[in-house]
Amino acid sequence: MTSAPTAPATPALDLSADPAELTRALCDIPSVSGDEHALADAVEAALHAQTDLEVLRDGDAVIARTHLGRSRRVVLAGHLDTVPIRDNVPARLVDDADGRWLVARGAVDMKAGDAVFLALTTRLPRPAADVTWVFYDQEEVAAERNGLGRVARNHPDWLAGDLAILGEPTDGRVEGGCNGTCRFLVTTHGRRAHSARAWVGDNAIHHAADVLDVLRDFRPETITVDGLAYREGLNAVGISGGVAGNVIPDECTVHVNYRFAPSRSAAEAEQHMRALFAGFDMRFVDMSPGARPGLDAPVAREFVAAVGTDPLPKYGWTDVARFSALGVPALNYGPGDALLAHADDERVRVDTIAPCLDALVTWLS
Amino acid sequence: MTSAPTAPATPALDLSADPAELTRALCDIPSVSGDEHALADAVEAALHAQTDLEVLRDGDAVIARTHLGRSRRVVLAGHLDTVPIRDNVPARLVDDADGRWLVARGAVDMKAGDAVFLALTTRLPRPAADVTWVFYDQEEVAAERNGLGRVARNHPDWLAGDLAILGEPTDGRVEGGCNGTCRFLVTTHGRRAHSARAWVGDNAIHHAADVLDVLRDFRPETITVDGLAYREGLNAVGISGGVAGNVIPDECTVHVNYRFAPSRSAAEAEQHMRALFAGFDMRFVDMSPGARPGLDAPVAREFVAAVGTDPLPKYGWTDVARFSALGVPALNYGPGDALLAHADDERVRVDTIAPCLDALVTWLS
Repeated sequence: MTSAPTAPATPALDLSADPAELTRALCDIPSVSGDEHALADAVEAALHAQTDLEVLRDGDAVIARTHLGRSRRVVLAGHLDTVPIRDNVPARLVDDADGRWLVARGAVDMKAGDAVFLALTTRLPRPAADVTWVFYDQEEVAAERNGLGRVARNHPDWLAGDLAILGEPTDGRVEGGCNGTCRFLVTTHGRRAHSARAWVGDNAIHHAADVLDVLRDFRPETITVDGLAYREGLNAVGISGGVAGNVIPDECTVHVNYRFAPSRSAAEAEQHMRALFAGFDMRFVDMSPGARPGLDAPVAREFVAAVGTDPLPKYGWTDVARFSALGVPALNYGPGDALLAHADDERVRVDTIAPCLDALVTWLS
Repeated sequence: MTSAPTAPATPALDLSADPAELTRALCDIPSVSGDEHALADAVEAALHAQTDLEVLRDGDAVIARTHLGRSRRVVLAGHLDTVPIRDNVPARLVDDADGRWLVARGAVDMKAGDAVFLALTTRLPRPAADVTWVFYDQEEVAAERNGLGRVARNHPDWLAGDLAILGEPTDGRVEGGCNGTCRFLVTTHGRRAHSARAWVGDNAIHHAADVLDVLRDFRPETITVDGLAYREGLNAVGISGGVAGNVIPDECTVHVNYRFAPSRSAAEAEQHMRALFAGFDMRFVDMSPGARPGLDAPVAREFVAAVGTDPLPKYGWTDVARFSALGVPALNYGPGDALLAHADDERVRVDTIAPCLDALVTWLS
């Protein structure tokens, strides 16, 4: 007698475990972008088995929520995916002078944040606000694949709330909003000629000196928004030109990235750049407006008080901007150092995880 | 009864024909670089059959020469190969307001020049100087494949002489020597960082503005050598830098081409550039010194007198520099407009070919 083949069992997650243990268990289920199915299944199964939350699913995004009739709703969101594994799964523990580290792909970006939010599902018998948890896929890849964006399109009501917290690594500080980012191409033109008779042509690469001069001489502003100082940045991230070793080039393109404070709209950021590069051939290729920190809302002020340290601005663009676009103020808050994200020795200090959980419990109890 | 298969017959060339007719016959034997075998065979066969010159061969280079015991020897050299055919073989005749044109790949670069030299083999019963004819392969491709360079390595004595004339198109003017050319890379360095925190990094593309400023502000010299004014040129022919749309780049490379007067040696040209780009990371990738026009030699002065127009400087680098490196002064002289070389509608005006032959006959009779 033969038994039917069975799929590999989904590893069981213990949501009541220490959040550092839970982080490790999450890291040990590989979930490179596009391949989050096993981890999403494990999260969904644990939420069903260990909580009485309503559990919803869209692709490999798992949503859980309370329905307590509270006057306010808080959204806690974390992406389940990681950048590709580089011999750093399963997780291992390493001790050094700074303490004990969990070394693994995703440790800091952002399974420690996911673990804090997942653990919270079992730590809040009577939360002061209704809570929605969102665990989603494909944050580390092209924007159009982003799972949070897909949920926002398919079920915008699932993301409704008075404040969203994204579990990106912030070293346990509150980082408000995020800068916007846009990219554009500035192209200079000339006339081809054989380089033996350069004076017949017009060198487009030499004209690009004017573009680089603008970039080099630009002094980026620091703009205070809702009490946080956002530092802007304007940089060439690419340059290309040239036809052959004996040809005066007729075109040169500088690829520019402008990071702008969340007080500027997309249109204002574009206008600012068009004024700076007036007279040049410009083409915008990407525009992602930022998110205001939203720290003036009472629910946000209470959260900041619970964390107990001054909030900081977030410089990098994060999915808080997607909440901001839905009208939900959003903050970044999670364990771990963002500078270790994507590193081959990605790691999170074990004793920094539980305090994040404690702050959320304090705030929401 | 069956006959053995025979190879296609080599088309016969008539060296005593009008040189425009001979140009057309040469154009109708395709000879893209690396595929000159049929044309070299035809040239070799015609020289054997129609002249009593000594005929030598090295690969697809064909050499013919007199042994008259004259006090001076003149070398006439032309390459047999062309750039790739673009629906422009066989040749056709086209009339316009300027006259009758032979339109064909190679018409101007340089089968008209080859035809003039080949026709000359039957027009000089008693030449005033010994003459060596060199018809060679692979001039239009990488320097290391050049047939003239190969003959110079294998049989330098075959190229010996008091003056060499290269049949490159010069509109029937004498163009002396050639500018030298070199290429080098100037690389700027910085420090990578995420572009959301640009101040942590150091933008190598912005530093390249300093390199482009040098190029843009440089005023190339015009240097008189042996009575001819050589116009120099300094140009970026390529630029590249950039890692990703969100990364401050740590490296940017500008690819520079310097065309320098034949009065500068290779070492002097390099030194000049190293002084101009002092402090930058520079790497030379190519160095081809120029050739002095050599117009002070009596044999050259007599040739210029026979042509009857003032000589001009040659800007582009040509194989005259290979003769110059062997100690043989060298000039460019041939029918046709060099600006039509490599064009899809490459063409030579029919009535400009015979006068070049006439001038050579006058000079050498």
